[in-house]
Amino acid sequence: MIEHELLRDLAEKNTTKIVMLVADGLGGLPLEAGGKTELETASTPNLDRLAGRGTSGSSIPVLPGITPGSGPGHLGLFGYDPLEYRIGRGALEATGIGFELGPDDVAARGNFCTLDAAGRISDRRAGRIPSEESFAVVERLQAVRIDGVETFVKPVKEHRFVVVFRGPGLDGAVADTDPQATGVEPLAPVAASPAAERTARVAAEFVRQARTILASEKKANGLVLRGFAAKPRLPTFAELYGLRAAAIAVYPMYKGLARLAGMTLVGEAASLEEQLDTLAGCWQDHDFFFLHFKYTDSTGEDGAFADKVRRIEELDRALPRIESLRPDVLVVTGDHSTPSRLRSHSWHPVPTLLVADTCRPDGLERFSERDCLRGGLGQFPAKHLMLLAMAHALRLGKFGA
Amino acid sequence: MIEHELLRDLAEKNTTKIVMLVADGLGGLPLEAGGKTELETASTPNLDRLAGRGTSGSSIPVLPGITPGSGPGHLGLFGYDPLEYRIGRGALEATGIGFELGPDDVAARGNFCTLDAAGRISDRRAGRIPSEESFAVVERLQAVRIDGVETFVKPVKEHRFVVVFRGPGLDGAVADTDPQATGVEPLAPVAASPAAERTARVAAEFVRQARTILASEKKANGLVLRGFAAKPRLPTFAELYGLRAAAIAVYPMYKGLARLAGMTLVGEAASLEEQLDTLAGCWQDHDFFFLHFKYTDSTGEDGAFADKVRRIEELDRALPRIESLRPDVLVVTGDHSTPSRLRSHSWHPVPTLLVADTCRPDGLERFSERDCLRGGLGQFPAKHLMLLAMAHALRLGKFGA
Repeated sequence: MIEHELLRDLAEKNTTKIVMLVADGLGGLPLEAGGKTELETASTPNLDRLAGRGTSGSSIPVLPGITPGSGPGHLGLFGYDPLEYRIGRGALEATGIGFELGPDDVAARGNFCTLDAAGRISDRRAGRIPSEESFAVVERLQAVRIDGVETFVKPVKEHRFVVVFRGPGLDGAVADTDPQATGVEPLAPVAASPAAERTARVAAEFVRQARTILASEKKANGLVLRGFAAKPRLPTFAELYGLRAAAIAVYPMYKGLARLAGMTLVGEAASLEEQLDTLAGCWQDHDFFFLHFKYTDSTGEDGAFADKVRRIEELDRALPRIESLRPDVLVVTGDHSTPSRLRSHSWHPVPTLLVADTCRPDGLERFSERDCLRGGLGQFPAKHLMLLAMAHALRLGKFGA
Repeated sequence: MIEHELLRDLAEKNTTKIVMLVADGLGGLPLEAGGKTELETASTPNLDRLAGRGTSGSSIPVLPGITPGSGPGHLGLFGYDPLEYRIGRGALEATGIGFELGPDDVAARGNFCTLDAAGRISDRRAGRIPSEESFAVVERLQAVRIDGVETFVKPVKEHRFVVVFRGPGLDGAVADTDPQATGVEPLAPVAASPAAERTARVAAEFVRQARTILASEKKANGLVLRGFAAKPRLPTFAELYGLRAAAIAVYPMYKGLARLAGMTLVGEAASLEEQLDTLAGCWQDHDFFFLHFKYTDSTGEDGAFADKVRRIEELDRALPRIESLRPDVLVVTGDHSTPSRLRSHSWHPVPTLLVADTCRPDGLERFSERDCLRGGLGQFPAKHLMLLAMAHALRLGKFGA
């Protein structure tokens, strides 16, 4: 990324502090034509006041029309081009359950399935085996032993689990073993490049031993592996920005994404209040603070418009405590939109607000999707948000003379 | 650049004329929260009237958050991607003092320094030797003679000078000899690539002879060289746009930047009035006119808000004379922002106005940072401004059938 080359040349030391408050899935839609979005419906006196001081705009997570998952959504906010830096499915799944991937790891998503007497898949989800049952089956797989490789098998939910192979020279370029169909056998793990041949053999050995272990299971007597992936190699926040970055998140996925960017996980907060306690407590030790608020997304995913409004109002009430710490730059944004109406992530631009003494006024007095359209940040790629935060933190030197 | 490929295919002949008035450092900031910028404070009846006729917007010189120097700022306005076309430090310094670089030249910035008896740097700026003294020392360096290479040594200011080596096969890939520390000797010039080995030897010979010449100096008895760079290879305005381009500037730096783009320097103006006289006088001989107005930047750099306001008003009063020539396209913009409040260049977008009969009205009646946010040009990379000017000058054909 040319932006990263610039940062290596231009990033400067300073004592300024940046807070990035990410309201997951912040952007929304009206339920009916002519109506208001969740953010427009919510009473947000603090965000509105901050919009008057700062500069607003709409961030585009990946490209217009592209709906991001949590991985690409956050990579963009952290300043990594999500089209260039990809987190493989297996690595993301491991990250999501809080498994800390190492440099020698290759992770894959596993699905239990039901095989018939001929070894053909009869149920691709092992009868949607309940999590408790599945966890016990995962426990039995801890018995797998492979020469020269450490193996971790971790439960996710229902028929889903994660397997991580740890050892030197492993490589994620192994094809899925899931034939995406019933009535056929699982595929063998096949290396897509010579570098991955050993990994394919390791995966085949894992499947062989697992099949023996699982032979007696009624539902989960087989498995398929998908999304083999190593830990993505991201330059860290310290390398890129010279920032001591702290992540204050509740859910494993967002902790994991922050860790991939080299942030330090701080605290064990279970609520926004506790996150703010943590923020205050670690204020002196860091320069950048990523605060993740999940519930604007989960209420959107549930199609719960009123709940999302309420969660936005909860977030708004948290702002004075953040302001009381006097951050030099305060960013409020989302990793993507999650309109309750769609009950899913969406491609719509994300309302974004940056507050600093160096903001040029854009005449806004409200923070909302509609107002952001007239804001001074315009519509911009999310991957440029960190450049703006760094500039307003007076941590970027001049490009050229 | 894809834009240049397009231009080579699409640029067409016409008799239309384009004026680009660059108010250096035009964009600003309010001094206090809730206040107005310099441009918003100024009385600008002509710019406001033109905003009603034309299309406005905010140009981003390099990337969001990136503060450009004069070089990248102007390259963008001239249609060169400043991230792709870099002007090395030495070449820019030579340009800034009005030295016309040739294709066989490599330029470097020189600093006089004080060496102790052991040859170690005791003062990196030679006691900030006054310019008059320094100029005399530079004069003594004219005695350097190097086989097969012509050498130019030119004073800049205080301890700073420029050295240019002219000869076939020279290359700018030579490392700085400045150790950026005292108590150590200057470094030897080292080639970073095989192509630069001869240049490194030439530089070493220059340093050897210079040290002998300077041995008797009290303060400036040593020197370091930095930013070795050849003249950047830019396609010219004639090649890219088919435009006969004239530059009407007062300061050497901007004349030099225009010359790098292949513009013809016209006149010897010392004031805006004289620049307008020059413009009228050369109107028939050129198609494109770059007018550079320095004082919106220098007042900003001085932190002189009221003076910058006054300079903007001076610029505004100049517009009727430009309009009386009936340019087909009139562009008013800046190469970057220089808010008085920051006393330096900044990353903020630059208010930009394009006036032509082909402008689509955007409903604005004022030219200001705030109004430009709602303008028809939106926020756009500065490097695209020339495409727009060419289009409105009806000098670009259709892309594809």
